Amino acid sequence: MGASLRDIARLAGVSVKTVSNVVNGYAHVSPATRAKVEEALSRLDYRPNLSARNLRQGRTGVIALALPELDSPYFAELSRFVIDAAAELRWLVVIEQTDGSLDRERRILDGVRDHRVDGVILSPIAIGADELAARTDDTALVLLGERIHDGPADHVAIDNVRAARDITEHLIGLGRTRVAALGAEDNAASGTAPLRLAGYREAMAAHGLPETVAKVERYRRGQGAAAMAELLARPEPPDAVFCFNDLLALGAMRTILAAGLRIPEDIALAGLDDIEDGRFSTPTLTTVAPDKAQLARIAVDLLKQRIDGGPGSLPREVGASYRLMIRESTAGR
Amino acid sequence: MGASLRDIARLAGVSVKTVSNVVNGYAHVSPATRAKVEEALSRLDYRPNLSARNLRQGRTGVIALALPELDSPYFAELSRFVIDAAAELRWLVVIEQTDGSLDRERRILDGVRDHRVDGVILSPIAIGADELAARTDDTALVLLGERIHDGPADHVAIDNVRAARDITEHLIGLGRTRVAALGAEDNAASGTAPLRLAGYREAMAAHGLPETVAKVERYRRGQGAAAMAELLARPEPPDAVFCFNDLLALGAMRTILAAGLRIPEDIALAGLDDIEDGRFSTPTLTTVAPDKAQLARIAVDLLKQRIDGGPGSLPREVGASYRLMIRESTAGR
Repeated sequence: MGASLRDIARLAGVSVKTVSNVVNGYAHVSPATRAKVEEALSRLDYRPNLSARNLRQGRTGVIALALPELDSPYFAELSRFVIDAAAELRWLVVIEQTDGSLDRERRILDGVRDHRVDGVILSPIAIGADELAARTDDTALVLLGERIHDGPADHVAIDNVRAARDITEHLIGLGRTRVAALGAEDNAASGTAPLRLAGYREAMAAHGLPETVAKVERYRRGQGAAAMAELLARPEPPDAVFCFNDLLALGAMRTILAAGLRIPEDIALAGLDDIEDGRFSTPTLTTVAPDKAQLARIAVDLLKQRIDGGPGSLPREVGASYRLMIRESTAGR
Repeated sequence: MGASLRDIARLAGVSVKTVSNVVNGYAHVSPATRAKVEEALSRLDYRPNLSARNLRQGRTGVIALALPELDSPYFAELSRFVIDAAAELRWLVVIEQTDGSLDRERRILDGVRDHRVDGVILSPIAIGADELAARTDDTALVLLGERIHDGPADHVAIDNVRAARDITEHLIGLGRTRVAALGAEDNAASGTAPLRLAGYREAMAAHGLPETVAKVERYRRGQGAAAMAELLARPEPPDAVFCFNDLLALGAMRTILAAGLRIPEDIALAGLDDIEDGRFSTPTLTTVAPDKAQLARIAVDLLKQRIDGGPGSLPREVGASYRLMIRESTAGR
């Protein structure tokens, strides 16, 4: 015979109602109270019969997080926060990798493998707003980490245009005049690349500077290294480069240093994502740091509201904050 | 009305039995045939009623992968392979993070959150063989990435002792005599640290060289940077360092370079894991590369056999292969 809610409440020194709120993952429980209850639950080895409750509610207690690739540090770090936020609701998180493929994103929107999940958090690359609007599956959906204007689903993202403009302004503020953008894509329908490119262009235009754009197919170190080599081979190589993510920047850093050039003296370098790698590279990497914990928490909160049947049919757009992290790759030692 | 297995078989040019084998995730279908069938399934939008079948079999079609931390690149890369291998069986993969905490590992062994999964692949840090042996939950279990001798569960790992000895031999072979080990742990009951330390000691003893050991609490860049600073402050700093994973090595690299020392001229540096970061750092990082795809595939195969009720009660121990990757941090440019 296991512990009852009453046993838990007595040990934690709270009401049975509060214990119930914690067990059911409702909000409006203070972190301190939640911690007391969690400890009591753990000490008395309380096991809610989640399977039975989920079946009763027609739910699985499992959500899917669909992202391009788990072995990209940004998505790994973000996933960690999503799993932590979901755990507070006693949800399990299934990870689905799309590799940014349109076909795989479509399949996820058609119901993750036969509706074994209650909801989906999707970080889309290939799929566009029109196709999202035509979606017939009714599994709860939240888009994470990009922005489809007037899109048909809830989404949460940083303001990518403004973030890109800010970091480009920082490079221009160093007195650099040949600032390149590295990371444009040819086929992105809804990813962040067009937004980051737009922000770069706004900053360059505001200062009357000419644009230099290098394209890539994937946002990985190898592509950053290759695109940087291509930039160095041009008649007028850049004196500053804004890479659309940190992995591209770390690949570019390798190419620049291997060519015997100095960072930032010859080429100032900046990324976006604030992955841990860039805090320990030599030089350390200047970047834009999205608040990943906030992004994850908002995404899970929005999804919970959808799963619970709220909050009406209108899609919501929520912004998350970001900061510029100025490090050695632009500021020097 | 959806497509039938017969429709799929006709389009793919194979037998109905073969289609059934693919849909049910059985082995012994060639990759080429599997691809043809998958394409036909996709084109005809075939939807097996997995929920119904799973319920009939008393299964969820979901497994858990429990690992210390998803935002460690080694585990993110490994997770990618596990998710890919599980997808071929049409399994979903829930990720659980233990942070290497004994309490969380215990809870996972007690049945992941009320048995909503069919099986568990666990990468243990804290839990020991005795406790594993005393486990009463009967959820299928496979241990991944370490070695508990004569342990009570199936497990798959590289030979960590031999790998550590090999990489230490490589450092000694460069003519270095003050080779340090960075990454020992105080409280590891079953992790890889004691095995890697044992391999290092074997190599040092074989050459009559004195041991230098730096301890850490976590296997992250920050801990590597701090432990390296502590090694540099000793009266006789090392002329080579074997770090127990690549993250520690990349942190140590930062400390060495920031101190104005050269790699490998002043200090040769090696890691273990072969994460992508070390292929693009400057200098690139010498390391041991475990075959992560093989590790993942074996783990999923072992788990499938356990879930299917085979292969008897005796635990199995399977070794995966590894290679030394000699790069600039020991070989120079």
